[in-house]
Amino acid sequence: MEKNLEIISSLCKRRGFIFPSSEIYGGINGFWDYGPLGSELKRNIRDAWWHFMVQWRNDVVGLDATIIMHPRVWEASGHAAGFADPMVDCKDCKKRYRADQLCEEQGKQLIRDGKNLLLPEGVVCTECGSKNLTQPRSFNLMFKTYVGPVEDDSAAAYLRPETAQAIFAEFLNIVATARKQVPFGVAQSGKSFRNEVNPRNYTFRSREFEQMELEFFIRPDEAVELICGKVTTLADNPDLTGEPQEDWGWEVWHRYWVEQRLTWYRLAGLPQEDLHLYWQTKDELAHYARACVDIEYAFPFGVQELEGIAARSDFDLTQHQKYSGKSMQVQDDRLRLACEAMTPEAKEAFKAKVIADWRARGKDALEAAQFVEDLFLGRYIPHVIEPSAGTDRLALALLCNAYDEEHLTDAKGKEDIRTVLRFAPALAPVKVAVLPLVKNKPELRDKAWKLYADLRRHWKCAWDETGAIGRRYRRQDEVGTPFCVTVDFDTLENDTVTIRLRDSMEQIRLPISEIVSYVDKSLTL
Amino acid sequence: MEKNLEIISSLCKRRGFIFPSSEIYGGINGFWDYGPLGSELKRNIRDAWWHFMVQWRNDVVGLDATIIMHPRVWEASGHAAGFADPMVDCKDCKKRYRADQLCEEQGKQLIRDGKNLLLPEGVVCTECGSKNLTQPRSFNLMFKTYVGPVEDDSAAAYLRPETAQAIFAEFLNIVATARKQVPFGVAQSGKSFRNEVNPRNYTFRSREFEQMELEFFIRPDEAVELICGKVTTLADNPDLTGEPQEDWGWEVWHRYWVEQRLTWYRLAGLPQEDLHLYWQTKDELAHYARACVDIEYAFPFGVQELEGIAARSDFDLTQHQKYSGKSMQVQDDRLRLACEAMTPEAKEAFKAKVIADWRARGKDALEAAQFVEDLFLGRYIPHVIEPSAGTDRLALALLCNAYDEEHLTDAKGKEDIRTVLRFAPALAPVKVAVLPLVKNKPELRDKAWKLYADLRRHWKCAWDETGAIGRRYRRQDEVGTPFCVTVDFDTLENDTVTIRLRDSMEQIRLPISEIVSYVDKSLTL
Repeated sequence: MEKNLEIISSLCKRRGFIFPSSEIYGGINGFWDYGPLGSELKRNIRDAWWHFMVQWRNDVVGLDATIIMHPRVWEASGHAAGFADPMVDCKDCKKRYRADQLCEEQGKQLIRDGKNLLLPEGVVCTECGSKNLTQPRSFNLMFKTYVGPVEDDSAAAYLRPETAQAIFAEFLNIVATARKQVPFGVAQSGKSFRNEVNPRNYTFRSREFEQMELEFFIRPDEAVELICGKVTTLADNPDLTGEPQEDWGWEVWHRYWVEQRLTWYRLAGLPQEDLHLYWQTKDELAHYARACVDIEYAFPFGVQELEGIAARSDFDLTQHQKYSGKSMQVQDDRLRLACEAMTPEAKEAFKAKVIADWRARGKDALEAAQFVEDLFLGRYIPHVIEPSAGTDRLALALLCNAYDEEHLTDAKGKEDIRTVLRFAPALAPVKVAVLPLVKNKPELRDKAWKLYADLRRHWKCAWDETGAIGRRYRRQDEVGTPFCVTVDFDTLENDTVTIRLRDSMEQIRLPISEIVSYVDKSLTL
Repeated sequence: MEKNLEIISSLCKRRGFIFPSSEIYGGINGFWDYGPLGSELKRNIRDAWWHFMVQWRNDVVGLDATIIMHPRVWEASGHAAGFADPMVDCKDCKKRYRADQLCEEQGKQLIRDGKNLLLPEGVVCTECGSKNLTQPRSFNLMFKTYVGPVEDDSAAAYLRPETAQAIFAEFLNIVATARKQVPFGVAQSGKSFRNEVNPRNYTFRSREFEQMELEFFIRPDEAVELICGKVTTLADNPDLTGEPQEDWGWEVWHRYWVEQRLTWYRLAGLPQEDLHLYWQTKDELAHYARACVDIEYAFPFGVQELEGIAARSDFDLTQHQKYSGKSMQVQDDRLRLACEAMTPEAKEAFKAKVIADWRARGKDALEAAQFVEDLFLGRYIPHVIEPSAGTDRLALALLCNAYDEEHLTDAKGKEDIRTVLRFAPALAPVKVAVLPLVKNKPELRDKAWKLYADLRRHWKCAWDETGAIGRRYRRQDEVGTPFCVTVDFDTLENDTVTIRLRDSMEQIRLPISEIVSYVDKSLTL
């Protein structure tokens, strides 16, 4: 079925998934609120991510840091200087565009000449058609504010444009307290803010959004080699589905996380064929990055990024070491012991090899020598793999993927369209709707109400007693409730209920005592 | 035991509950990060609140709105004009104070003369002792930023100083989609920001903090009277522990929520004797508020507010109606039907009574008449009860309450102090620690590791294989883990383990197959 964003967003508004923020005041561009059902969907996404990334693992711990941090964090990360979009204005109608998007929409490409940006010939204002556009200039995307009562530069601070930096800023505190050795990761989910010039594609590109990020710290390949005598690469065809291995190099770790994340998206219900991997080319990669893969989803408005998974070397921690003056090295006892067992000759040979490697990559020989000396003492700055996902983007992908219209013909030949959101049950906002068959029989209604009270101790449930039962099923289909439990006259006799399944519309009869285990079975991701 | 904030905050730092934000850059005053254990504690608090306030009820739905909203929201709410603290500066040493706190610390009281504030005689700078202080002036506590690329007044926006206003701003959307009739509530938890002049008392008064707020919308008493023929007040001694009743007036609803919230705090583990109710006096109440109760906890630094529960009349929705031009009235069919059955005489008599009531309270007769006319059509602006809790304050209260030092004497008469965090198991960051008795026997370690992998599918678990078993128990005691599961040589024989209980240090022997149900039993709040 062709998915239509307008139909989906209209359903989201009508049934309480997503509303424009501050709509009674005309809204505010790039800000969206999640209503009663949307807030449950997002809770479920966050929880499913946390379970998979933190709770079910031994090698990841959590963090919940502030949105406003010390402004030096953004100097160290590069955001203060470089986190900017190119902006152009139409001098005639005053409309403002993101230069790269404006060009792209007109089948052209923004010209990048070193740090300078130029509009190609023939680009016009989409609004008024004028060619009278300013040249692109840089606009920093961080929201700025002032902490404390004085509005001067010393008090300036920024709303975080990503959650990741807090993990680096708290790295030393976490290492000191969490009793974890590299390789290990730190996960965080929370709000981030980017002052986008043109928010667009519904909730896809918003100014306030939520992220779920992991920084997974690994040994530099040289340390792996010293400990294991070899470094496993993808060429060795390692098994990525089992437990991670000590001899994995960065390349294997990176691919491991790509596979983990793909597995998770499939568990969340996104079909393999709608998930795409985009490997950034050498030109696209940031200078410090060794590889970056985008996991993309086929949205109605195009194939777009859900998550980026980057191998960022030791860039971030090194930057924070430089800006804070605090050593970001960890002490790795396995490495130290391995090096203590080496002969002086073996050490010299290893050092010479690393220096040659580094020089071949255009890096400084002295730095390489220092790096190796530190390794011999069991010390290094960890490298990092960063799987960084957008919570709102996933919510939107799940809504698009779940949306279905089913053409039905009833017994009398009457045609009908059933709208249904086919969420994975674990992520569905409401798990079970309890429906008394009739509402004017108190005994039956009381029985149903008691069941509803019991079931909602387990999961989010709904109650609906108005309208014909078929109509009530459809109401639940439209918001993706996987199970409807109908309490009828037989229930009063024998304590059984009808469970009606969202996807197949099949109805089965079950004793009340079996509902919880029946539903629970379907809820493991 | 006397609780000492310094000891508790030092434990929080050392074990990974709470870190200063951006500490490697010298920190940022009023911002705190939650580390691996703290982030789990906060997740548990949020979940417990959501379960109690939303999932387990039929009459509350959730919302997850943006932090940045349209600036008119804050004009309507009164925050733009009035959300300010009085600030004084020392002209000599330049230190800045909150005027009311400075006075209070010196046993004096800030003089309020209408809208003007004056320092009483004799107040001095705490820092340098100077009497050369500025007069107090108002400082708005909202963090300001600019949305979009232009920094002018039309682009100014604020970080929300409370989550509550989003509920009012989305009220119409929620009523239109959630299929709920008044009385019903909307719950939201999330970050809020206040640019406090003097953040203090550890995490208690921070500039970035988290709230859990409910707006519970009720009928005006006049509508209750029309429907039920009477309005139940506290004088009628209603049962507040069962299901809410249709004839409750605002006073009963308010007290019902106070009782609900007290129940929840007790379930969360705070002892009755450390919880205090503070009823605001008439002078302290905001002009629109009918009552406000603070639930306070006896922190080491004094008895301070955890949650405020206010009966706010229809003030907020009325303000948003005025500022947005959108009617905030709901259509109440029960009310309409009740009024349709009234005689014209009964209606006239009712109207006259309401007008007299309103006049007695100094309110406009024409407005009262219009209000009654609308009631007769089944329309009114709902009143609201607002239980507003601080997530960080509760986290701090739970940490303070949980902290205990136990003086032990071992068999040989050696004295020892055991530090233990006695969290309610449902809120403890880690539920179960799995400990292999020895680590150099692979069979035993593998068995324990497999058990750990199984158990963490259920809850957050920890693994610890280093050090003597007694030492490992103590490590878990110090972070509040309620259960330690030790895998020993007998486990290999008969699949039983030792479960060691945090509070009593008792050890019991259980089959592995019974661990999950044993632990689960203790986790219901």
